[in-house]
Formats: sequence, C-alpha cells, structure tokens
Amino acid sequence: MNRKLRMGMIGGGEGSFIGAVHRMAANLDGQIELVCGCFSSDPENSRRTGISLFLPENRIYNTYKEMIEKEASLPVGERMDFISVVTPNHLHFDPAMLALEHGFHVVLDKPVTFTLEEAKSLQQKVKDTGLLFALTHTYTGYPMVKEARLRVRRGDLGKIRRIYVSYIQGWLYDDCAGSNKQASWRVDPKRSGKAGCMGDIGTHAFNLAEYITGLKAIEICAELNTFVPGRRLDDDGAAFIHYEGGAAGVLTATQIAAGVENDLTIRIYGEKGGLEWRQEEPNTMILRYPGRPAEMVRTSNLYMSAIAAHNSRVPGGHPEGYLEAFANIYRNFSLALRSLQKGEVPKLEYSDFPSVEEGVRGMQFIETMVAAGSSGEKWVKMIE
Amino acid sequence: MNRKLRMGMIGGGEGSFIGAVHRMAANLDGQIELVCGCFSSDPENSRRTGISLFLPENRIYNTYKEMIEKEASLPVGERMDFISVVTPNHLHFDPAMLALEHGFHVVLDKPVTFTLEEAKSLQQKVKDTGLLFALTHTYTGYPMVKEARLRVRRGDLGKIRRIYVSYIQGWLYDDCAGSNKQASWRVDPKRSGKAGCMGDIGTHAFNLAEYITGLKAIEICAELNTFVPGRRLDDDGAAFIHYEGGAAGVLTATQIAAGVENDLTIRIYGEKGGLEWRQEEPNTMILRYPGRPAEMVRTSNLYMSAIAAHNSRVPGGHPEGYLEAFANIYRNFSLALRSLQKGEVPKLEYSDFPSVEEGVRGMQFIETMVAAGSSGEKWVKMIE
Amino acid sequence: MNRKLRMGMIGGGEGSFIGAVHRMAANLDGQIELVCGCFSSDPENSRRTGISLFLPENRIYNTYKEMIEKEASLPVGERMDFISVVTPNHLHFDPAMLALEHGFHVVLDKPVTFTLEEAKSLQQKVKDTGLLFALTHTYTGYPMVKEARLRVRRGDLGKIRRIYVSYIQGWLYDDCAGSNKQASWRVDPKRSGKAGCMGDIGTHAFNLAEYITGLKAIEICAELNTFVPGRRLDDDGAAFIHYEGGAAGVLTATQIAAGVENDLTIRIYGEKGGLEWRQEEPNTMILRYPGRPAEMVRTSNLYMSAIAAHNSRVPGGHPEGYLEAFANIYRNFSLALRSLQKGEVPKLEYSDFPSVEEGVRGMQFIETMVAAGSSGEKWVKMIE
Amino acid sequence: MNRKLRMGMIGGGEGSFIGAVHRMAANLDGQIELVCGCFSSDPENSRRTGISLFLPENRIYNTYKEMIEKEASLPVGERMDFISVVTPNHLHFDPAMLALEHGFHVVLDKPVTFTLEEAKSLQQKVKDTGLLFALTHTYTGYPMVKEARLRVRRGDLGKIRRIYVSYIQGWLYDDCAGSNKQASWRVDPKRSGKAGCMGDIGTHAFNLAEYITGLKAIEICAELNTFVPGRRLDDDGAAFIHYEGGAAGVLTATQIAAGVENDLTIRIYGEKGGLEWRQEEPNTMILRYPGRPAEMVRTSNLYMSAIAAHNSRVPGGHPEGYLEAFANIYRNFSLALRSLQKGEVPKLEYSDFPSVEEGVRGMQFIETMVAAGSSGEKWVKMIE
Repeated sequence: MNRKLRMGMIGGGEGSFIGAVHRMAANLDGQIELVCGCFSSDPENSRRTGISLFLPENRIYNTYKEMIEKEASLPVGERMDFISVVTPNHLHFDPAMLALEHGFHVVLDKPVTFTLEEAKSLQQKVKDTGLLFALTHTYTGYPMVKEARLRVRRGDLGKIRRIYVSYIQGWLYDDCAGSNKQASWRVDPKRSGKAGCMGDIGTHAFNLAEYITGLKAIEICAELNTFVPGRRLDDDGAAFIHYEGGAAGVLTATQIAAGVENDLTIRIYGEKGGLEWRQEEPNTMILRYPGRPAEMVRTSNLYMSAIAAHNSRVPGGHPEGYLEAFANIYRNFSLALRSLQKGEVPKLEYSDFPSVEEGVRGMQFIETMVAAGSSGEKWVKMIE
Repeated sequence: MNRKLRMGMIGGGEGSFIGAVHRMAANLDGQIELVCGCFSSDPENSRRTGISLFLPENRIYNTYKEMIEKEASLPVGERMDFISVVTPNHLHFDPAMLALEHGFHVVLDKPVTFTLEEAKSLQQKVKDTGLLFALTHTYTGYPMVKEARLRVRRGDLGKIRRIYVSYIQGWLYDDCAGSNKQASWRVDPKRSGKAGCMGDIGTHAFNLAEYITGLKAIEICAELNTFVPGRRLDDDGAAFIHYEGGAAGVLTATQIAAGVENDLTIRIYGEKGGLEWRQEEPNTMILRYPGRPAEMVRTSNLYMSAIAAHNSRVPGGHPEGYLEAFANIYRNFSLALRSLQKGEVPKLEYSDFPSVEEGVRGMQFIETMVAAGSSGEKWVKMIE
Repeated sequence: MNRKLRMGMIGGGEGSFIGAVHRMAANLDGQIELVCGCFSSDPENSRRTGISLFLPENRIYNTYKEMIEKEASLPVGERMDFISVVTPNHLHFDPAMLALEHGFHVVLDKPVTFTLEEAKSLQQKVKDTGLLFALTHTYTGYPMVKEARLRVRRGDLGKIRRIYVSYIQGWLYDDCAGSNKQASWRVDPKRSGKAGCMGDIGTHAFNLAEYITGLKAIEICAELNTFVPGRRLDDDGAAFIHYEGGAAGVLTATQIAAGVENDLTIRIYGEKGGLEWRQEEPNTMILRYPGRPAEMVRTSNLYMSAIAAHNSRVPGGHPEGYLEAFANIYRNFSLALRSLQKGEVPKLEYSDFPSVEEGVRGMQFIETMVAAGSSGEKWVKMIE
Repeated sequence: MNRKLRMGMIGGGEGSFIGAVHRMAANLDGQIELVCGCFSSDPENSRRTGISLFLPENRIYNTYKEMIEKEASLPVGERMDFISVVTPNHLHFDPAMLALEHGFHVVLDKPVTFTLEEAKSLQQKVKDTGLLFALTHTYTGYPMVKEARLRVRRGDLGKIRRIYVSYIQGWLYDDCAGSNKQASWRVDPKRSGKAGCMGDIGTHAFNLAEYITGLKAIEICAELNTFVPGRRLDDDGAAFIHYEGGAAGVLTATQIAAGVENDLTIRIYGEKGGLEWRQEEPNTMILRYPGRPAEMVRTSNLYMSAIAAHNSRVPGGHPEGYLEAFANIYRNFSLALRSLQKGEVPKLEYSDFPSVEEGVRGMQFIETMVAAGSSGEKWVKMIE
C-alpha cells in the first residue's frame, strides 16, 4: 500500500483552536491526508470548514454518526483509516466509541473522556478490538521529553527522589468566558467535566511526570482553588504526590497567573543528578550532576539518543516547537498504524505515544484531585 | 478553484537536507500538494524519493527539463502550478529559468544563483513574465522578524544608527567535507560559488538587516578568512557596512565556531531605542528604551501587530520554530499566488516574502564581500 | 560622633563560612569597624582568627560572656556599639540575650534561635530594652526584593492570589556531614533545632513571601521528607500555605536536588499582574501584565524606586550580588543605629531590615512545619 | 607587621562615581584602611568627603602634591602604603608619577594616562623603582574571567581562531553631557584624551581579549563613529584585529545603544572548542565542544580551578558581582604588596592583576584606533 493514511476529523470547525492544530500536525510530514470530516454540530459550519479544507462535499458530514457509518461502508483504501476527535471533553466518548465499533483507529484529544467510567469503557473497547489509539498529550512529543524519559529510565539520575512539575498559565485570570470560545467550554462543568484547570492542564503536568519517570502516583494531598468570582470549576490547584518507590512530587497548575503564557516546567532529581525542562524553551534540557558543570542538552545534536533523533526534523539550532511535538504524535501513530496494516509489530521507537492507558490515568488523576481537594483527609489514594 | 496548489520539486532526493524542509514547510498548512518531482540527477534516487512521497510513477522525472516540459503540456489544473528548486547553488539558475519560460511560478532556495549575472537574468525574466517568485530566506518568516520590521520601519526606534548582525555556526570547524554531504558542496567553489560561509549564511545575515530596517548597504569594509587547512572557500568573515542614511553595521559570519549551533542574532539601535532578536530563541524579541524597563515581546500575544499575528499559528507560549518560519514563506507565496490566479492584487500582509530582488541583492553582497575581502582598499562600494 | 560604628563578633572563627560573610558585609560601606570578637569556643581558634583580623590581643576573648561583660565595662566610644552573632543555631540565644541585657544592639543570623520560646523571650527583651535588632535574612537585602515589596504593597499586581516560593539546593544530596563542617551542624538536631532544611532555607523562603507581600500565613498543609539515609532531620519538604486575605501559597524547599546551587525563586500573581524573581540572577525581576509585553526590571536603573536605589551601589549593568544584599542589612542597621544614637527616629527607607519579629515568625514557621509534616491533619494553624 | 595596609586616595570626592567604587572594593576584605586623601581639586569638597569617610582633618589634603609630600614625611607604619588615583584621565599621570617618585605603590584607574607617552614614562618609572602598580581593569577581576584565562592558555580550546568581543552601552545615546557629571568629562577631549568610547570602554574590551588569550594584537582595521550631534569624540566604533598566531578578532564598542546597560561580552573559538561570557551575568561561562552538550561553568563550584576559587568569596549560587571583581584587584594587589613588604616574591595566584604594561597596551590601542579610524589604509599596525 503506497498511499497516505486517510484521516477523518470530528470537531475542529470554524472558531475551534485545537482542530487546526491537529490538522497541521497531521499535515507536516506528508504521511496523512484528510479525507472527510464532521467539523461541527452546526452543519453549515461543518460544510464551510470542509470546503475550506478542499474536501469533496460528499465527504463532509452533518453528524459524526453519519460519518462513521458512511465511511465504514466505503471500500478499504477509499474510506478513512482512522478518526481524529477534537471536540470539547463531553463529546469525546461517543464518537470515539462508535469509531472503534466500526473498526476505525482513533486519535483523541485529552482529557480522554468526560468521566473515568467512560475512559474505562474506551480502554476495554480498545483492548477488545485491537485497534490503535493515540491520546494527544502534546508535550510528550517533544524530542527533549523523549530524551529525558530515556535518561531517567535508564538510571542516569539514580533513584528518583523529587519531582517538581508545574503548569502555569494566565489566560483565565479574569472572567473571559463570555467573549472567548476557548475559555467558555473549559469553565463549564457540563462540557469540561469535574475539573477545570486540573482537567485542562493539570492532566498534562501529571502525565508528563509519569511519562518521563515511569513512576506511578499512589496517593495525593491536594488543594483546589477557584479564584475568579462566579467560576464554577477550579482555576488553580496544587498537589503533593507520593509515587511508587518513594519519590515525592509537587504538582502545581494554575490558569490565573496573570501575564504568564504557557509555562509547563518539570524538574526531576535523583540520587545522582537532576534534569530541568521548560516547554516555553523546549529545545534545551539542563542536566545537573554534583561536582561538574551543568550540561545544556539541545535538540537534534549528534550526541542525542536515537529516540530523540527520531523525533527531530532539523539540525540543532533550528528551533523545533509545539507543532512539531504535536506532529510527532501523529507521525508515530502513523508509523505504528502502517506496521499494523502490514501485519508487523510496531517498533518501540514509534510506539511511545500516549494511548488509552494514559487517558484512564488522567481521568483517575482528575477524580482523585477533585476528591482530595475537597477532602478533610490529608492523603487520598489514587482512585482506580 | 477550490483545490490545493500543485507543487513540483527539483532536487531534494535521498541525502538532501533542505528538500525535506521545503516539503514540510509546504505541507504544514494544507494549502499545497506535491504533484511531481525530479529529485536527483540520479534517476534511481529520484524514483525512490518520489515513490516514498506517494507520487505516481509518471510524475517522477529523470531530468528537470523533462519535468518542466511534460508538466507544461498537461492541462491547467492537472499540471503543477509552481516549482520549488532546492538543488545546490550551481543548479539553481537553469531550472528556475526554464520554469519561468514555461510559465511556472518559482520558489527557490538561497543564494538565488551561482553568479550575479545569472541573478540579474532571472530578475529580468521574472519581470518580463509577471510570474511569482519567492526566495526562501527562512528567517524572514519568523513572526518576530515581521514584528521587528514593522516596528523599525514605522519609527519606533527612531533613526537607525547601529546594526549588529552575526551568524555564528560551528559545524564546519574541521574538515568534515569528506563525510558530510551537506558540507561537501558548500565548501566546493564549483558548486557553492565564489563564497563559502558568506554565500551560505552571510547572505542570511545581510538579508535580515536589510529586510528589517529597509536600509540599503552602500559600501563595505571586509575581511574573509579560511581557517580550516585545505579549504578553498571562506569559512569565516566580517564586515563593516555603511547603510544609506548614515547607519553603521557590523556583520559577522562564521562556520568554525566549534560547538555553536545556529546562532543568528540581530541587534538594532536607533535614536530612540533598540531591539534584539536571536534565532535560537525566536519567540522573544527584546525592546529597549531609555528610562524604562526592557520589554519582552513574545510571539502570538494579543498585543502583537496584525502582520505578526498573520504569521503565527498557535497561542503565545506554544513555541513556533524554524519550520513554521519556513512554512510562512510557502503560505504567503500560496496566498499571493491564489490572488494572482483570481486576478486580484495580492494583499500586503502576505506579499512581504523575499523575492528575486533580494536574490540579486544577496549576490551583490557575495560579490562585494569577495572583492572587499581581498582588496587593499578599505571601503568597497556595493557591486551593482 | 564622627566615627565608624564598632562591632563585636561572636562566632565566625576558622572553618566558619557565614562569619566571613558577615564581616565582608559589614566592611563594604566603610561604616563599621570590627573592634573585638570571640570567634570560637576554642580559645586558640578565636585568638588566631582575631589576629588575622588585625584585632589587638586584649579585644580577642575566650568566651562570649567575658567579651560582653568586659566590653560593657569600657567607656562609650571605645567599647563596641553592637554585637554580631554568627554561631550555629543552638548558640544564638544566650549571647544575644546577654548582649541585650548589657545594652548592646544585636545583629543575629537566622533562624533567630533554637526554639520558639527563646525567640519570644528575645522579642520581649528587645521590646523592653528598646535596643536595635537585625536578623540577617539576606535575601531581603536585594534591591530587587525591595522593589518587589514596594510594588506589591502599593497594589501594582492587584489583590494577591498566588504565591509560589521555592528554595532548591543540592549540596546535601548525600551524606556529606562527616567531611563538611557546614553540613555537619545543620543535620544535627542538637545544633540545628527541630528542623533541618526547613530551618536552614525554608525559613528564608517563608520570610521572603511575607516580606514582599506583607501577608501573614494563617495555616499550613505540609509534608517533610528525609531522603538521605541516616539523616535525623528533614532535608526536603513542601507546604501549601493559606495567607490572610485569601492568597494561596506553595512553598518548596529541598537540599537534595543534586547539582542545584542556590535556587531561591519567588513568583507572585495578583488580580492584575505578576512578578518573578530568582536569587541566582538577582538583578532582574520580570513583571507581567495581561495584554502587554513582560517587563524586565533591572537593578539600579533610573526608573527604579527610591527604596531600591537606596539599596544599590553601582549603575545598572554592573551586577550586584549576594554580598551587597547582605551588606544592605548591615548598612541599613547602621543608619538606623546612628539615628538612634542621635536621638532621631530612623527613616523608613533604612528601617525595613528584618528584626526580631521576623525571627519569631520564622520559629513559628519551623514549629508549624514540623507539626504539620507529621500530622494526619491536613491543615494546621500557624503555631503562635 | 600585623596591620591593615594603608591607602591614600586622590580623587573620588562628592559627585564622583568611581571613587566610591574603589573604596568599597578596598574595604570589602578588611585588608586595607583608608588613611588619607585629596578627594577633589576643590578643598571644601575634599574636606567634606574626608570627614564623611571618618578621616582626621590633618590627613585630608588640599592638593595631591601636598598629600604625597606630607605622607612621605611621616614614619613608615603611619604613612600611607600606597595611593589610589581615581581622577579623570587627564589627571592620572602627574599624581601617579609623583607618588612613585616618593616611593608609594600605586593603584590607578584606566585608561592609565592621557597619552601614550605618559604611559611609557610611567612604565619606565615603575620599572626603575620596583614599586607595585595595579591598573583597575575591573573585568579581569571576575572569577570566571580568571577561569577563562586559565582554560584558554592551557589549550582547552585548541589554537585560537576567532575572538568576538563587544562592549555595548546606551547611556550616552543623547547629549546628556550637560546634566551628567560622569558623562561630561568623558566626552571632552581635554579630559578624556584622544578617544571617547574607545578610551572609556573599548580599552576594557581590548584588554579582556588579550588578558584571557595571552595573544597580542598586531594590526587593526577600524571605524570610529560619532553619532550624537555636537559630540567631539567617538561614541561608537568597531575593529577587525589580527592577533599573533593567526587569530582574528572583531571588537565592537558603543555608548549609543539606547536602553542597553553594560553589556560586555566575549566569545572565543579555537580549533577544539569555544567559550562565551557576559559581564551582565558574570557567574556563568558557557563552554562548547563539538559533539557534546555545552557546559555551564559557574562561579565558586568545587570543580573550578584554584585561581578562580582564590577569586571567589561565597559558595556557588550566591551571586558575586562587579564590586567583588573590583575588590579582587585590590585584594590581589594587597597580597602582592604584603609579599613585597616581607621580602618575598608574590605568588602567581595573586599576581595576575593588570599593571602598567596593560596600561601602555591600552594607550597603544587608543592611539591605533584613532589612527586607523581616520585612515584610508585598511590595516594599521599597532602603534608601539
């Protein structure tokens, strides 16, 4: 089969932010073509969006249900190979489930679902069908995050003791929900889920720590805050986290740090050394060891590991950014999908994208944070 | 016409670096599709490359001549709309000229040609044909460079006095030409042209200063060096530049700064203030004014100008990088091309990509630098 | 009285670190001269130290008791004006108390005492005697911290919501106590007090947040850890802090972050904006406001406030560091002391150094952290 | 002799900037006491300054001549040991010469004299008398500059190819001379000398490059500019420099870069690696080597060399700044002086402060820059 992989998209119509990001990420490497979509619950919006994306009218659908069923009826090679779901949180589960039921692989934005129960159903379905599933925890796509993961897991830092992860934003510092479509659904419990800030960005921070270290959180002591008057979900919070093996974490996430853009930072210290990485300058990772100068590890240098090199596209000093990180998830998903289509086992180097397990994990984090935040108990076990 | 623009590519086969970059840049926004190519002078390499890019075999050509002629014979709408030329310098002119003669718009990697004379011929041909021409001075594609251009030209810094621009690399610090395909042609006068470092990266630095300030260099005092034994072209150099209006520039470029990646930096000071920008952290520009704190202007914030916003894709704090800058040239070229196809005048906001004039200017810079570098005269007028 | 102020020192003999720092801080501005000292419990060490400091032998004492009593018997103008106590924590209270009882003003290293009770006694004594007391919370001496304090307190950031303060060090990442004199007493409960890391550096972080914001902590949720096997005090910990007025804080402190030097960082966000300051690059403070570029406020520029200017010594761009911050405490103490000696009320601009109240506050913090760290209760009220 | 060294000061009265800096630098380590001074050509200013510095009235002089002669008549041990001259450039030579003639060691601010001829006379006198002489090229006092010097000279970077040194300031961006005492003499040829910017800061940049690398400049191609209307001396300039052994330098210096504070930066690249250091963040030096991560060498870490450790005062992460660098010159001068007084040969570790040879070198640089700047010749040999 020498052709691009075929993608259908649900969500991402006019006014959406993340839909366009998914499309750019899917476009970048020329391995995927968009063949159909249902971009909005408003058919007119969906149609306009599809036409602007050069889709033929008969592949622009009014409902996701129609899309999945019609596409499933097309011959293999013509129909979409996989579906990308980029709707608000409360509209993740149904289309993803239906897609799986019809044999389509799935890429899904995070958090995976609206509730933990849905996440588990989805996990079971993925397992039952054997279909491929990717969760776009974008930040795991950065080459430097891959490098960090490799180095921590092979023991460069020694046994991990301390994990600081913080995700600091300022864009929801006031009551912008009325005027900002991106904001409005995120602060609405009916569309966002049990948590606001913790679902939107806390999950990224939580995922990043587990993704790099391979350590599982076992219990949490948390505080959730809502600073903006009238807001119905948390817009800020912090947690102490106990990880298996004795590591201690502090996770902070906020969306009310006025003036801050998108400052996701992780610092990990073990018995032998430490590392520090900031998403806003993602091509540099600092490695620290006692008794010698700190090292500035930089994307795409020849000394980088094979896994980081695989996730880089241009030589060192040519900055790679958010869209490249996002595209790495699509590219790795594509490579794994092609392996599957050929009946081969996907290689490790492109099988490290977050999947439904990370999705369930994220929902457990949200559930636990909400419970711990309102609990008088100091420590709350991770809700399984 | 609701379809993607159709691109043919010359060069960019296996072992090429910049060809893949052009393709990613063209892919990112989903506005362009690759429909044909002659990727190498080796037909087998060309064929393998084309197939890996999912091209049908009949659109993979053995020579650029064959490609341009065959494509020209295809009906409009099927044939390519424009050609992208990504070969080494000595192979720029012929295919670009032939493409123009057959009515194809052209995207060309820099420096525009092997000699100044070729550049002028090309300039004349572009003028005569009225076809669209883009020169991929990548760094002009950064949103922050657009912002700098806007602010300097509207007078935020006052009359410009001082321009420091430096482009410092280290990858050619030793004699790597034997083992590195990218290096080998760059240090070969038969393929690179009269200049090595100055053609490869000096032109970028020179272009960046003129692009942002709108000031034309009028005379140069220069030194060229070749530090690596046996190398036949300059691998280092520096220039004092006198600009029209009295501004003074210092331009430095080197490829032997061992350990440095790709440090293109510009600092501009006028009577009222200054700005500083580094390509390796391209999302931050520092603005300085006497008597108040320096400002960190950051990509994609709401306070950015319309032109910078037009060249950004994701919200502030989601780093945009080299590929996005490159893609901006393709996107702006595409928008201008669509305007032309509709018989409209391209809008200013997407007509600011470098074109053949900047190409001629770059060749004048190379000629002048080579002359000034070997001259006993202190100041050498820009060779026109 | 036109003469330097006369200082006596207790502690700071050979092998001490902080004693030499206090002396440099006292020397810098030429306002203070060291006239006597008891530098060690080992008379021979004390003598050698005193001689190396050019003291006459009759002003080098074997015990602090002897020193205070003898000095008190000397005529005014010859005897010391104040005493500086730079011993390990368990040896703070007795000499400070005795000095106050004999009418000497006191400069004391932090934490103020070994126990909260001692701190309160000292506080009462200071109140009763009307003598001047300075606690060397060094970091409050930085001009940029003064500027932050001014700006936060006058409302530039609006009502404060979020305070992140972290103090991260790595020098105690392994069991260095045997070989490092500085380490050995800090990890010994008999000399350090109830807390290790929290007393040594957690108090600085706690103080910095209250110093800048003027907000008082009211309750704490904390975790204390001891990562290095065999260590008997905490070497790491974290706290959620509720401040009066509704601000929420996260304080982290660790001494086991292998490879990190002395990273004290504070970030404060209010309803209108935020600020960020790092001790390791202390001459820059970032101010953030929604909708406009962040500002880099830099030490000793003309736009700085009078209070920051008063605490700077050289023009902007000439870095001021730790010793200058430390010296600011001595200088402000000196100025206040001269005012007192003249019967004047010290001016506000030099009366903002930490005093015994901050000392009591620090001990309350230690007590509360130790209680909260071992408590099953989530929130523990500040122990008064 | 167990006493502090005794310093007399010429210049540094009210309204002076650098005098106070010298005094703080001399104070910091408690090795030097100010015993006399002639602080201004205005006797009343001199007297007020001396009293504010706690000097007895009989050691406050009206003229430097009176001071040197009277002090010379005092018994050894009572009279000053050395003199510190901190007047504007045109008033360096006479008091320094007179002091040497009366047997006093000398510390002198840079540039050493008003003319090259004076510098050579001074050099001869220092040689003839065997007295100690220090020139306060402050930036050589930074521990990191010492470390750079050690590493470059022992060959860590291989044979040096490229030196970039730039000193960028903005404080003279407009005609501030009328209102700023510091500015007024610097832009006055009668007080500053042949050069403005090049004498004031160009000499620092020139010295720094030679100090670190040990390479001597042999010829210069230069441009000098005066941007501010009405100014009579250069306020900006640049030079290409050929060093012995084949290294090429670019030196830039400006005082009209509006908004810039005090940005002295040096980057040195050799056949094996490179280093980068910025005075505004002086505690970090970046070391680069091909094929491995760049290293952040930081002041006062245990991995630093003995010479850097000798020039540091506090542990890593406690920033040391401009005053500490300045104090290092005084401390090293003091140590060397004590050795001399004991009849010992000063140790290498404290004999590396700039002396009269560097002073002559700086005057040669000024002479050569002025000649080259106005020359039609491209290259001008260093004027000896």
